[in-house]
Amino acid sequence: MTAAPARLVPDLLDEYGKTARVELASYTRVRQPFRHLYKLVADYPERGGRMLRPSICLATAGAMCGNRSVAIGPAIAIELLHNAFLVHDDIEDESELRRGVQTLHELHGIPLAVNTGDALCLLALQALSDHRVELGWSLTRLLEADFRRAAFESVEGQAIELGWRRDNAVHLTIQDYLEMTLKKTCWYSTIFPLRAGAMAATRKPLGPSDLVELGFLLGAAFQIQDDLLNLVGDEERYGKERDGDLYEGKRTLIVIHLLQNAGAADRAELVNLLALPREKKTAADVAWIRARMDEHRSIEYARAVAHSLAGAALYECRKTFGHLDSSIDRDFLEQLCAWVLQRS
Amino acid sequence: MTAAPARLVPDLLDEYGKTARVELASYTRVRQPFRHLYKLVADYPERGGRMLRPSICLATAGAMCGNRSVAIGPAIAIELLHNAFLVHDDIEDESELRRGVQTLHELHGIPLAVNTGDALCLLALQALSDHRVELGWSLTRLLEADFRRAAFESVEGQAIELGWRRDNAVHLTIQDYLEMTLKKTCWYSTIFPLRAGAMAATRKPLGPSDLVELGFLLGAAFQIQDDLLNLVGDEERYGKERDGDLYEGKRTLIVIHLLQNAGAADRAELVNLLALPREKKTAADVAWIRARMDEHRSIEYARAVAHSLAGAALYECRKTFGHLDSSIDRDFLEQLCAWVLQRS
Repeated sequence: MTAAPARLVPDLLDEYGKTARVELASYTRVRQPFRHLYKLVADYPERGGRMLRPSICLATAGAMCGNRSVAIGPAIAIELLHNAFLVHDDIEDESELRRGVQTLHELHGIPLAVNTGDALCLLALQALSDHRVELGWSLTRLLEADFRRAAFESVEGQAIELGWRRDNAVHLTIQDYLEMTLKKTCWYSTIFPLRAGAMAATRKPLGPSDLVELGFLLGAAFQIQDDLLNLVGDEERYGKERDGDLYEGKRTLIVIHLLQNAGAADRAELVNLLALPREKKTAADVAWIRARMDEHRSIEYARAVAHSLAGAALYECRKTFGHLDSSIDRDFLEQLCAWVLQRS
Repeated sequence: MTAAPARLVPDLLDEYGKTARVELASYTRVRQPFRHLYKLVADYPERGGRMLRPSICLATAGAMCGNRSVAIGPAIAIELLHNAFLVHDDIEDESELRRGVQTLHELHGIPLAVNTGDALCLLALQALSDHRVELGWSLTRLLEADFRRAAFESVEGQAIELGWRRDNAVHLTIQDYLEMTLKKTCWYSTIFPLRAGAMAATRKPLGPSDLVELGFLLGAAFQIQDDLLNLVGDEERYGKERDGDLYEGKRTLIVIHLLQNAGAADRAELVNLLALPREKKTAADVAWIRARMDEHRSIEYARAVAHSLAGAALYECRKTFGHLDSSIDRDFLEQLCAWVLQRS
């Protein structure tokens, strides 16, 4: 029954993902107006993401009450919100590829893409509301409040990150980076899925900080690994344009480390390059930044930080879920802490 | 006590608006991150719109139960959603001016503007939820369902309208226009405010079609007048760039009438001009379209349609609210039906 450790996370991601995809399809099915809205709404979900967020939600519910399906509503709501954010983030970051295919605004223009992101966000709210009968109204209200909190945190984190690029911020620290990541990524990607899974399983409210630390540690490790994959990953498997973050001038932990460690002349050059708009940066500029990152071991630094976060996540995960009966759902959550760094 | 008819609507708009603005300010107040998010969130609301949507909501509640304030939650929720749509619509329409000042994306770039629209939409949901104690949970749930419906309709209507421009649709009828307007404008601008005001006043659910007809008639008259003001209005008072709709290739009722009535050669030229992207259209192109509209009396046609819709709205308004005790709130709703055409 239990898969070998190395396969357990990918196998269970497939299994949770299959469950979530069936339910998700009822929100992205063919409707009118099809050609300029619902076709676009279905596009990103159908590109086959990993369904990490619904998986965490279903696994947490499974680990805590033995019944994953109680958390299906928030699980797909958060996946729909994730897709809404992807569509808007791709516009905001001027990204060209998503899951190996042109981004939605590249395919259909910014106007229809902005509108599609709005629709996906509304569908997420609908999904949460549609499960109010099983979950009960008062629990649904708590989940909705947590959902809004997670979405707000992400919008605030996005404003911080976009602000850094807009102001060409160059005096950032790892604390700044982690606070931004907590808001932009962790709240909706890991904290909400953990909390929603737990609330659906116990049918009880959580304290405001419950599971926040675990979600932060796991989510931050995940985000740093995502930034690393942008630099060292295989474009075909990663599905985004290689070095896209460098073209975008994104303030990853790797860039922040380089800004802190480069000599005066290199740093001045880096500051100038970061200030250039995407289309003004040449491949040679990007290669130069990339070479400085190697020189100053910025990639190794970020990798080490990700490893220590993942280690702390595993520790916190065992403290949090260790008292529960053994289950593959609990094993999934534990092994996920290492998997976020192994995924390619 | 009762203002003279000609002043009643503007005076009450000021009065309802003042009430709504106080409450609204608690959602757009200074918060962190200020410079790249909450400053932008507060921008459009602080430009001093007419607060038409909250006014309809408060007036309906006042007319039906004598207590406007029961509807303050949905009133400001819909104003926040309206501002979210304005921010996103300005991006989608590539508009340059809003309420006489540069649009948000012109001032801060598309990335921060997309994100600000997302924040305003989330704040709208928060406002609705924050009033659940006065309104009761089950009524709040009904209002939230209506709110999502209205927002969805608008996103669908926006997709239809953007699709027309994208496909350079030229075989449209007045029915197409009215269906699009029902979705894009009426549901959130008039139908939801009327329904939410009524539900808050009676604390009872409404049937799915209650007040929809009245909202449609009033909202469609309002939208056609808005399209007319874009062509014949005073730019300084109107607050958007004159003839902006012609540059954008927007399918207003006026354009649809001209497409149906121009001779073959003029029509072919019009179809070509409509297909040009905004920046390729010259002032001479726009003046030529404008002259053909005069020649074919397309503006008079749209004005006549708006008048017949407003007349039907007044008729429906009296049928709907005529049995209520006389009040300035009820007078406001009646007189609003004529005012939507008189406003400049």
